[in-house]
Amino acid sequence: RIDPDRLWDSLMEMAKIGPGVAGGNNRQTLTDADAEGRRLFQSWCEEAGMTMSVDRMGNMFMRHEGTDPEADPVYIGSHLDTQPTGGKYDGVLGVLSGLEVIRSIRDMGLKTRRPIVVVNWTNEEGTRFAPAMLASGVYAGVHDEDFANSREDAEGKRFGDELDRIGWRGTEDVGSRPMHAMFEYHIEQGPILEAEGKQIGVVTHGQGLWWLQVTLTGKEAHTGSTPMNMRVNAGLGMARIIEAVHRIAMDHQPDAVGAVGQANVWPNSRNVIPGKAVFTIDFRSPDLAKLNAMRARLEAEAPQIAADLGLGIEIEPVGHFDPVTFDEGLVGVVRNAAEHLGYSHMNIVSGAGHDACWINRVAPTVMIMCPCVDGLSHNEAEDISPEWASAGADVLLHSVLEAAEV
Amino acid sequence: RIDPDRLWDSLMEMAKIGPGVAGGNNRQTLTDADAEGRRLFQSWCEEAGMTMSVDRMGNMFMRHEGTDPEADPVYIGSHLDTQPTGGKYDGVLGVLSGLEVIRSIRDMGLKTRRPIVVVNWTNEEGTRFAPAMLASGVYAGVHDEDFANSREDAEGKRFGDELDRIGWRGTEDVGSRPMHAMFEYHIEQGPILEAEGKQIGVVTHGQGLWWLQVTLTGKEAHTGSTPMNMRVNAGLGMARIIEAVHRIAMDHQPDAVGAVGQANVWPNSRNVIPGKAVFTIDFRSPDLAKLNAMRARLEAEAPQIAADLGLGIEIEPVGHFDPVTFDEGLVGVVRNAAEHLGYSHMNIVSGAGHDACWINRVAPTVMIMCPCVDGLSHNEAEDISPEWASAGADVLLHSVLEAAEV
Ligand SMILES: NC(=O)NCCC(=O)O
Ligand SMILES: NC(=O)NCCC(=O)O
Repeated sequence: RIDPDRLWDSLMEMAKIGPGVAGGNNRQTLTDADAEGRRLFQSWCEEAGMTMSVDRMGNMFMRHEGTDPEADPVYIGSHLDTQPTGGKYDGVLGVLSGLEVIRSIRDMGLKTRRPIVVVNWTNEEGTRFAPAMLASGVYAGVHDEDFANSREDAEGKRFGDELDRIGWRGTEDVGSRPMHAMFEYHIEQGPILEAEGKQIGVVTHGQGLWWLQVTLTGKEAHTGSTPMNMRVNAGLGMARIIEAVHRIAMDHQPDAVGAVGQANVWPNSRNVIPGKAVFTIDFRSPDLAKLNAMRARLEAEAPQIAADLGLGIEIEPVGHFDPVTFDEGLVGVVRNAAEHLGYSHMNIVSGAGHDACWINRVAPTVMIMCPCVDGLSHNEAEDISPEWASAGADVLLHSVLEAAEV
Repeated sequence: RIDPDRLWDSLMEMAKIGPGVAGGNNRQTLTDADAEGRRLFQSWCEEAGMTMSVDRMGNMFMRHEGTDPEADPVYIGSHLDTQPTGGKYDGVLGVLSGLEVIRSIRDMGLKTRRPIVVVNWTNEEGTRFAPAMLASGVYAGVHDEDFANSREDAEGKRFGDELDRIGWRGTEDVGSRPMHAMFEYHIEQGPILEAEGKQIGVVTHGQGLWWLQVTLTGKEAHTGSTPMNMRVNAGLGMARIIEAVHRIAMDHQPDAVGAVGQANVWPNSRNVIPGKAVFTIDFRSPDLAKLNAMRARLEAEAPQIAADLGLGIEIEPVGHFDPVTFDEGLVGVVRNAAEHLGYSHMNIVSGAGHDACWINRVAPTVMIMCPCVDGLSHNEAEDISPEWASAGADVLLHSVLEAAEV
């Protein structure tokens, strides 16, 4: 078993970097805090005898050597970046549990035939630069590097420039590695495991996603002196489309969700009718037909809403992945490890997107989940218990030992 | 008649300060650009032989002496601050036409018994610091100075601190002046004069306003992994209240308007269900009963919308004025001046709030309006013709000469 206290202490240490305002973290990708978190992770890995390579997307690969250095390595990967008001565990648990696996293997004097590589994938969250899971997506050949480098944050700063600025652009070709398998261990971010009283989620599938960025163009005008029938109100159009997103998701229950998380109007002045609104719709489903049906219905209804109000509309997809089926063999490895360790477990579908969803395209991949309190994530109050954290890390350890041929 | 070219040139000079991004202006109150605009206006007034006093709210009083310095002066006032994406004429036309009146009086060698004071009222727009017409409101005894000084902008900067910072806090007591009359000349900001083909609006009334700031409190959570029935979505609540505002205004037609101009969600991240939304409702009507009925209905419906979604709600009034009836005698003076000059004119109700609406409580007050293209204002594309500008300034000149006893 791994060392639960050491894992927990590392989580608490990392959480000191990029603190939030309410007990969580704001360590958004390619910020100074991200750079500092990377340096801390690097130093811990190097203390544990690992060697670092960094690719041109800033993905960090920390290698623990195997007895057969030529064998395809086993990967453990997740992300250290957080939401602007994020928790201490989302992503971080997976990366630091990977480190803890290596520390435990060394403590126990175990050798594996295959090398083990712990990865911090760049820009998983997608808040600052859409889409989410950007650098694992480039790794898996879903996006090209130019696309990634050109993504802009809300201030117009480019991903590529910010990666250079924080000094974490490496030289390694992106996507060039042989991979025997990849494991990602993550908090559930939903309420199911806690409700079912299970310690371990064996992740068999991941739901698919569409992010649609909508731009409505109306006419800025005075809120007082412009008659109702002369208004071209982009904020009202946004309100109607937010409601439509909710209705479309409700009409596809169960196994479908939809919401608008990001919403801005211009010039955002109390006495100006909004002349522009930009907002992002997030639709998800584990069922590809439902996922695409929700998008299609939005693309039929939103232009009608805009037309009724005289608004111009553009709908741009800014993130997408199909539902994912993880590797059956590795799913069995994880289930056996949980069983062997005596942890209660169940099959589960990931509600969130993860780097594993992309890596699954290029190597056998699987995820392990632990519960989180009230299913709450993307909230500074996100919480897990040390026991939950270590149970999943134990399952990770056993699964990786099997895959890496102890 | 005034000098149309000199007036226009001054408007164009002032518009160079705090330029916008699309041909208009961003010279928001108590910014460095506001300070620069004030200095330019001061220098022009001093060249025209006027003397300056500034009160503790930063209101600038530029005095042209009368033959009887003890006589209660006649005031001409409006504002030099603009919206973040404002036009070149909203407010500025009134202030610079006041200056042009003095320049013309001097050119013509005319003397008035009463002094004439041209005023730049601080923070008319109310975008940066709500409510609008803040400093004329303090002048008229509607707000106290502590209230004004404590108002905060979106970054938490206080009105009082910003007034000190730009160096425009004066020492004169606020509201201490004898006033024989005040005239405010302003663009209509609505479509009526242009549609009716009239050069001059004789403003008999102004409509009343309620600004209601709504704060909805939900629960930040993951857009993917949180089931629909566990969501407490502040953004969805905002959308429904924006729609309610529109419906309420439509149900009170004619003579009523309603919209939400300012709208923000937190943390404003694509994959986070908004945990908080803050937005401002703007209801207006020339009919006090309608105005208050719209507020009452909103205050009945919005808490119900919030409760249905499990959201907390707070509704705070952040701006208010009752409908205004301007001074009957001065309305006659303006009408006579237009008639005498041969300009087409009609009675009109101001759709926007103006400093004149507050000053009307403490001194006989009236407004003069000129048309603006497509009724468009609070938009960088706001436009008027030089002929429209000068016709109103001519009416202002004649009205002021009469009131100041030429
Ligand atoms: N796990 C996680 O929150 N990933 C971010 C991408 C997403 O929104 O699903
Ligand atoms: N005239 C003008 O736009 N004033 C700002 C206050 C208002 O919104 O009416």
